[in-house]
Parts: sequence; structure tokens; C-alpha cells
Amino acid sequence: MAKKSFWAWGLESEEPTVEQMREMAVKVSRQYGVNLEAVAPPKLAELSLRKPRISPPASITEFCSTDTHDRAVRSYGRGFRDRIRAFNRQFPNPPDVVAFPRNEQEVEAVLGWCSESGHVAIPYGAGSSVVGGVEPPEHADGIVSIDLSSLDRVLEIDQLSRAARIQAGVYGPAMEDQLRPHGFTLRHFPQSFEHSTLGGWIATRSGGHYATNQTHIDDMVESVRMVTPTGIWESRRLPGSGAGPSPDRMVIGSEGILGIITEAWMKIQGRPKYRASAGVTFPTLEASADAARIITQSKLWPANCRVLDPGEAANAAGLEGSQALLVLGFESADVPQDEFIRMAIAMASDAGGTLDDDAIKIVNPDRSTPAASSSEAGRQGAVGNWRDSFIRAPYTRNMTAGLGLVGDTLETAITWDRWPQLDAAVRDALNGALRRTCGGGSVTCRFTHVYPDGPAPYYTFEGLSKPGGEIETCDEIKAAASDAIIAAGGTITHHHAVGKLHRPWYDKQRPDAFAQALRAAKGVLDPKGVLNPGVLIDP
Amino acid sequence: MAKKSFWAWGLESEEPTVEQMREMAVKVSRQYGVNLEAVAPPKLAELSLRKPRISPPASITEFCSTDTHDRAVRSYGRGFRDRIRAFNRQFPNPPDVVAFPRNEQEVEAVLGWCSESGHVAIPYGAGSSVVGGVEPPEHADGIVSIDLSSLDRVLEIDQLSRAARIQAGVYGPAMEDQLRPHGFTLRHFPQSFEHSTLGGWIATRSGGHYATNQTHIDDMVESVRMVTPTGIWESRRLPGSGAGPSPDRMVIGSEGILGIITEAWMKIQGRPKYRASAGVTFPTLEASADAARIITQSKLWPANCRVLDPGEAANAAGLEGSQALLVLGFESADVPQDEFIRMAIAMASDAGGTLDDDAIKIVNPDRSTPAASSSEAGRQGAVGNWRDSFIRAPYTRNMTAGLGLVGDTLETAITWDRWPQLDAAVRDALNGALRRTCGGGSVTCRFTHVYPDGPAPYYTFEGLSKPGGEIETCDEIKAAASDAIIAAGGTITHHHAVGKLHRPWYDKQRPDAFAQALRAAKGVLDPKGVLNPGVLIDP
Repeated sequence: MAKKSFWAWGLESEEPTVEQMREMAVKVSRQYGVNLEAVAPPKLAELSLRKPRISPPASITEFCSTDTHDRAVRSYGRGFRDRIRAFNRQFPNPPDVVAFPRNEQEVEAVLGWCSESGHVAIPYGAGSSVVGGVEPPEHADGIVSIDLSSLDRVLEIDQLSRAARIQAGVYGPAMEDQLRPHGFTLRHFPQSFEHSTLGGWIATRSGGHYATNQTHIDDMVESVRMVTPTGIWESRRLPGSGAGPSPDRMVIGSEGILGIITEAWMKIQGRPKYRASAGVTFPTLEASADAARIITQSKLWPANCRVLDPGEAANAAGLEGSQALLVLGFESADVPQDEFIRMAIAMASDAGGTLDDDAIKIVNPDRSTPAASSSEAGRQGAVGNWRDSFIRAPYTRNMTAGLGLVGDTLETAITWDRWPQLDAAVRDALNGALRRTCGGGSVTCRFTHVYPDGPAPYYTFEGLSKPGGEIETCDEIKAAASDAIIAAGGTITHHHAVGKLHRPWYDKQRPDAFAQALRAAKGVLDPKGVLNPGVLIDP
Repeated sequence: MAKKSFWAWGLESEEPTVEQMREMAVKVSRQYGVNLEAVAPPKLAELSLRKPRISPPASITEFCSTDTHDRAVRSYGRGFRDRIRAFNRQFPNPPDVVAFPRNEQEVEAVLGWCSESGHVAIPYGAGSSVVGGVEPPEHADGIVSIDLSSLDRVLEIDQLSRAARIQAGVYGPAMEDQLRPHGFTLRHFPQSFEHSTLGGWIATRSGGHYATNQTHIDDMVESVRMVTPTGIWESRRLPGSGAGPSPDRMVIGSEGILGIITEAWMKIQGRPKYRASAGVTFPTLEASADAARIITQSKLWPANCRVLDPGEAANAAGLEGSQALLVLGFESADVPQDEFIRMAIAMASDAGGTLDDDAIKIVNPDRSTPAASSSEAGRQGAVGNWRDSFIRAPYTRNMTAGLGLVGDTLETAITWDRWPQLDAAVRDALNGALRRTCGGGSVTCRFTHVYPDGPAPYYTFEGLSKPGGEIETCDEIKAAASDAIIAAGGTITHHHAVGKLHRPWYDKQRPDAFAQALRAAKGVLDPKGVLNPGVLIDP
């Protein structure tokens, strides 16, 4: 497996060069009217981690590591505050041991050791949590990060049912590589796709490729297998069931506090053969939101139905900044999508939309019309720009480390009736906090997912703080927005998960009675409370 | 509220007449080559129930009853064994008290009394459980059935988000009556629609109208409010969330063991304006199942996609008995459905299907073609026959009480790869048990719901036992089929719930670790264990 960067989003080989960081410093300086100098990124040799305080028993040492790089990488997720702390060489609380179990028996062995010895056990997929989901807790005596990346196989494919049994530690691209030769795909593409795992998606209720209908990984799970300190939890593989509360739904979103997911049967897809996409521009965000609502309520179920506000459309899709953009995409392995996009575009036009110069791209291999010759539906023009920008965004943010730039994202979901008030409140909160902390900054919004009853808005903010003050500034800005989200009736997260960072707001959101029930459930599965303490509920 | 029959499916006013029962005796006699005589149905005056063993405190007597009819009705659900026992005037274990709380405060008051005094509390919607879900447990000292039917209002409608806040005790038709003037509908039509409630649907993971995509009530719930012995559980109203395991999914399917659901925000629908339906015949069940699979995997998401085996197609849709029937239906409030059904029919034809004389019915008010003049899409021919038969089936079964006829249904879900083996095993088990107990009988199957990864098969069996031996016979037959379902990898229930009747098989199906977690959760919410003991888990 390629070596991860211990401080940046992505691999060591993808870290920005000093030259790139200098260019970025010039660009940011110009943008903010200041004079910033690039700061040299950290080197592994500069780190001096706390000595491991615990040693694994001989029976498991073979797959355990106390290597500095292994421990540094797993000291943080990859959120803003994680990258800044790592960039600043701050590693006060690394895991003592990193385990790399190669099969389920070894998962049981290392978790068994943790449970018997009272060591904290942190299930680790690919570590791209942005909410402190894999960060060791303070005040623990011994911490073991359990890296599942060796459980990386697609074990079985049921062609007829379009389902596959897949090990939880597989990274997105490696999983798709194994499904592709059989003509299948999971088509779950969170922004973290390259740096996240199936098990991580399930544990965090990841939101993926599909903007409507089956948006979360939740809907693609047929059954789950999980190792707990008290035994194996495995649900029956079923297309649907009404037998009691869904066992899977207790595992999905459990963020590593109940057990370690080792494999799952997943509903997979035929690889799309028919595609249709279009970008529709609108004079206002409100009008584009109306269009997204109407299309989603009509149950045409587009695969893509993302709304970009004018700022976002300018930054991410190359529009000139006064228009909102609705990105529509339909796809199917089985039926032509022409008619679907025609109906959706008609609705968008009725709502005040204009087809941009990208027009409509259609791929239909059954036809030999000019439209059919394009294999690039959804990969050109404004729509294509948006795709590229979406994938590159976290890498771009690596380049600004050390400059004092504060930029982060936050997301929620809200019903349509309350969406305008939530949007106003979140923008007010973000802009107010940016003024207080940075003298101003930018706020943009897009919808990542759209439901018949409401959108999932996703905010990006940026401001220039003082180098060294980025984390406090970012925390203050996010707290203001999070307060606004909870007050306006939203969820503290639609797909970024809760971890430790969202806890104060999650605690206001979830029913107290549910937290009690979850704590009781954890009590019987993890009686020593070793699994990911501090995440979701208090120990 | 109209008076329920204390023994038959439906209302007292819908009980079969002695004349109807005589006609049915003649019909069944002819069918089985025997000579049966109709037995007079029970009268309320013939019942002598055990005296109530407990008395409600003065503060709640106003909405409590110890009336014989009230208690007799709530002694059983409405499954086969329930109706036979009631018909036979066997009421050894009625609830002592029936409470009719008129608001949530009164729900809290009666549940508080039960919890303090250790009386069994059975949440009661409309009582059409077929799995012993509302039947009092044996060996309890005091039993209170809590009838929610006074909580019968649609409280709030959010037009923009297409959602409504609805009280849990409302019956299906009354709920639709309140949504209709606003142009909305929930469109959740289980076979029990007339005799079931929103709260009951949520508590039992009811399967409804939609044969594909959003099949269970689970997918229509935005948030739930529940009274537990330790306080109110209320989730936040959200179109989607990724914040921890879904609190709602712990309530959905909890079958009254965690609390009493009092209201829910539900995702509602625009009333369908465009419809399209067709019946497609196939030479074999296998071919029709293939068609249903292909259509569902294509994600056209028909509202109806039901497969009837040749026996079922003869009994329920009037075909001559050698062909399987695929009933297809599309509907929308927003977009014409012509193109959707055209694509689905093309797939069905490719799979070997033939359009029956019912042909295609299309309702499209935007057009004035002959097809558009029909307001009856889906209500004529084989499709219409199937609808009528579906709704009438439980009433027809009332008429055979006392004749020794054993007829019941059971249902499951299974992935496509294992469906043929499951079908063979279940038919073998049913036919074998029918031979042993009745000297033979009939077995038919339909798919009630279809998923991309598998169908939900629904079996109906019938045989003639000895009067007086019906329950033991039915139990033996169902046990054989249930054993076969579990051995073949299916679920013990796709939408009939677990209750007490499915417990032995449910206990094999669900992860032990999940049962432990659920028991622990119940322990904190219902510390005295008064809520519906014996259902889902052991106390």
C-alpha cells in the first residue's frame, strides 16, 4: 500500500512541493492583500513521539507496529484542525501501538487484548475522518489504533442478485477495481473515495454518489459482520425484512463504539451504460433550490441533482458569479436516460432555469446519433468543471497549510419549509464569525443531496487568520455555524459523522432516551468500554 | 368509531351472516368432497370473561373500560388462530383493563400506572396483528391493553416538504380522509389498511402499497415521538441524517416493547394523477420472476410489480391456472407514466411475457386520447380482479370459521440466487405438512414486494382439517414452512412482524449480540419490563 502523508490529505507522494506552496502563498497574498511566505512542511525526522506505553503480547506482535510514521499518521483524521496540528508537528497523543490485522481472527485477537487489558481500541479505516473519529482520546493509559486495510478483498459476487460480500478494510478504488471485471460497481463515491474504506463508510453513514433516493451507504447494506469484545455480530443476508428493529441500522453509524466491522454484503450496480447530464443556470439560489425540490418530489431520482450557489458555481464550475447552477445527471446500466433528463430539464426550465452552453450530454450506445458518440456525458463544461473541482478540493487545501488561511466545510440537512431560515442563519453565523476572527471572508453553499422533503446543504467558508491561530479561529467559526444549524432545526451532520468534534451539538440533537439505549447496548457488547471512547456517547 | 367484531376480521357489521356461512359450507363441502355444516358464530352474551384482577386508579378511570366487548376484542389479534379461538368462545386470558387515552398525557398516565404497579402494558392500534403481537402474555397478574385509537388526527401538514405530523392511533382510511382535502396521501396500503393504524405500521415495519423502492413504512418516517416508562423519546424532524445510528430505526419495528408511539412526521405524496398499469402473463413462475427481477434491477421503480404464480393468478385474478401473472403499475403526481410502463413491458416481453387482454391502461389527464379517458387504470381486468381479491381475502376467510378449514398465509424475503431453493423447500414443507395433517391441500405464492437483490414471496395455503383441530394443524403447517424458510436463508417475516408467534424462528435469525443490545436498551427505557413482554425478546 502506498505510504500516506502524515500531515496532508492523501499520500506522501501527493504532498505539495515547496514550489507549489510558494505559488499558493503568492496567490493567497494577492487575494487577501497581504504578504505571506510559505512555510516548510514538516518532515518525519522532526517528530519525536511519546514512547509507546504498552506492548502487545507476543501472540500478536507480528502484525503490530510502533513505527513513528505509522503512529503519526493515525494520531489524527484529516480535517482542518488535524492537518494544521500535524503540519505544526504537534503530536502529543499518538496511539501507542498500531495493529494491522490480516484477517478476522487477528481482529478478534487484538480487540481481545485491548478489552482484557483495558486499552483504548480505535477502529481505523483509511483515516480521513474530519470529525475526530479516529483521534485517540486524552487521558487514556494505552491506545491501540486498529488498521483494517489488510482486509481488502471482494470475497464473493452474486451476479443474479447484484450483491457482493466485501471485506471492510478495502479502499474505494481497490474495491471498484475488483468489481469492475465482473461488470459491477458499488457507485459510492464520497469526496474521500480514494482515502476511505467500506467499513468506514458503514461506520459513519457515509453519503455518496447518489444525490437522490439511495444517498447514504445505509441503503446499500444487505448485511454486516462485526467483531465485538463479546463476540461476533452478524446479520442475515436479506433484500428486505420486517423482523424487529433492523440490526444493521444499529451498526450503521456506530462509529466504532460497538465493534469493528469486518465485512458486509453490499447491493452493487450494473456499470452505467446510459448517461445523461446537464447544467442548468438560475438567477438565484432560491430558484435553483425550487427546481431541485420539484425534480426530487417528482421521483425521477436523478443520480446527480446538486445545486451550487453563485459563489460555489464560480469557484467550482467556472461560472461568472451571479448565477446559481443545478447539475443534473441520470445514469443506468439498463435503460436509456434521454427521457428522464428531458422531463427533469422541463421542470427546471419551468422553475426559471436556463440551459448553459454545456447543454445536454447524452450517452446512449444503442443509438448512433451525434449525441451518442460522446462518452463524456457529465465530464465536460460546467458539469465537468464541478466534478474535477470536487475531487481536487482537499488536495488544494494541503497547499495553504502554514499561511494562516482558515478554510473548512460543514453540512446539514433540513426540511424545505425551514431551509431558507436555516440558510440565512448559517450564513449570518459564518459571516459574523469570519468578520470577528478574520475581518471577513467567503461563504458558499451547495446541495450535496436532495430529498423529497428537504435538501442537504453543504457550506464552505474561508478567511485569513493569523498563522498559529488557525485552529481556534476555525473552531470559533464552526461553533457559530453549528449553533445556528441546531437552533434552526437541522442535523449536525448529514454525512460527515459525529466523532468527537460534533458531540456538543449531537448531544442536543439526539433523543436523550436514545443515548441511554445506545449506552446500554454498548455496555453489553463492550463491557470494558474500550472501543473509541468519547465518540457519539460519553463512556 | 364503528364496533369491531370480537371474533371476525373487520367490524361487527361486516360479520358474515348465517346464510353466507351456510353457502360457504356448501361450497367447501363440494370442493373437498365432504359434507360440512355451518356452525353458528359466537355471540357476546355467550362469553364469560375472567373478572378484572386490577383496577385503575381514580385519576385514569375516566378513560378506562372493563366492558366485556372491549376486553374480548383485545384478547387476540386477527390471525387464523385468533379468529378460531374467538369463534370457539375461548377467552381464557383477556386483558383486565382496556385504556382509551385521549391524548399523550393520558398515555403517559396509564403507562406510568402500569410501570409503577408492574402491570403488563400492551400498546394496541387496531388489533389486526397476525403474529400474537397484541395478545396478553400468560402468567401475568394484571394486563392493560392501551388502545390508541383516540389519537386520530393529522395535526400539521407541511405542503412544501410534502410531510405531515400525524397521531399514531389514526386508522388508515381516517388518515387518508384528512390528507385528501390537501391533495396529499401517504399511499401506504397494507392488506390490513382498514384495520390498522399509523403507530401499528411503524411499530411492526409494515409493508405497503409500493412494491419496489420504498416498500416499508420505515422509509416514510421523518421522525417519531414515543412515550416510554422513563420519559419521552422524540427524534428531530429531518429529511436525512448521518448523525450516529438512526434513533428512528430503533423505534421502527420495536413492536411495543420500548414505548408507545404517539405521533410521527411522515413523508407524504402528491395524489397520483398519472397512472399506467398492465398485466403480463408468463408460462412459468420462473419466467415472471425473472421479469420482475430485471425490471426492479433497472430501477424503473414501479409502484406495483407483483408476481402471481399460476394458482394465485387463477384464484385472485381470474386466469385459467396454467400461467403466471406479473401485475405492473406506475403512478405519479407529477410526470406521465407512459414511457415507464413501455420500458417495463419491453423488459417483461423479452423475458417471455405476453400482454393479457387487459392490455395496458394509461391515465394521463394532459392528453385527450382514448387511453386518457379511462380513470380506471389498474382497476379493470386481471389487474382489477387482483386488487378486489386482495382487499376481500381476509373477509372471505371469516365465512369458513368452524368448518375445519385451515387457511393461512406466511411471507419472507430472500436474495435472487437462493429464491428457487427457498421456494422449493417452502412448497415441499407446506405440501408435506398438508398431506400429513389434512390429506392434502393447496399452496400458492405471489411476490408482494421486489428488490433489486431479491423478492418477498408470500405463500397462501389451505387444507381441510377436523373441526376443533384447526389450530394445532395450522401451527404444524406453519412451523414446517418456517423451519424451511430459516434453513433456506430467508427472513421469518418481511412485513407481518415477529410478535410471539414468530419468536422461535426470529431467535435463530437475528444476531444474538443484537438481542442482547436490544434487551439492554429496553432495560433502561422500561426498567420494570411491563411493555409487551414476550414479544421480540424474552423479559
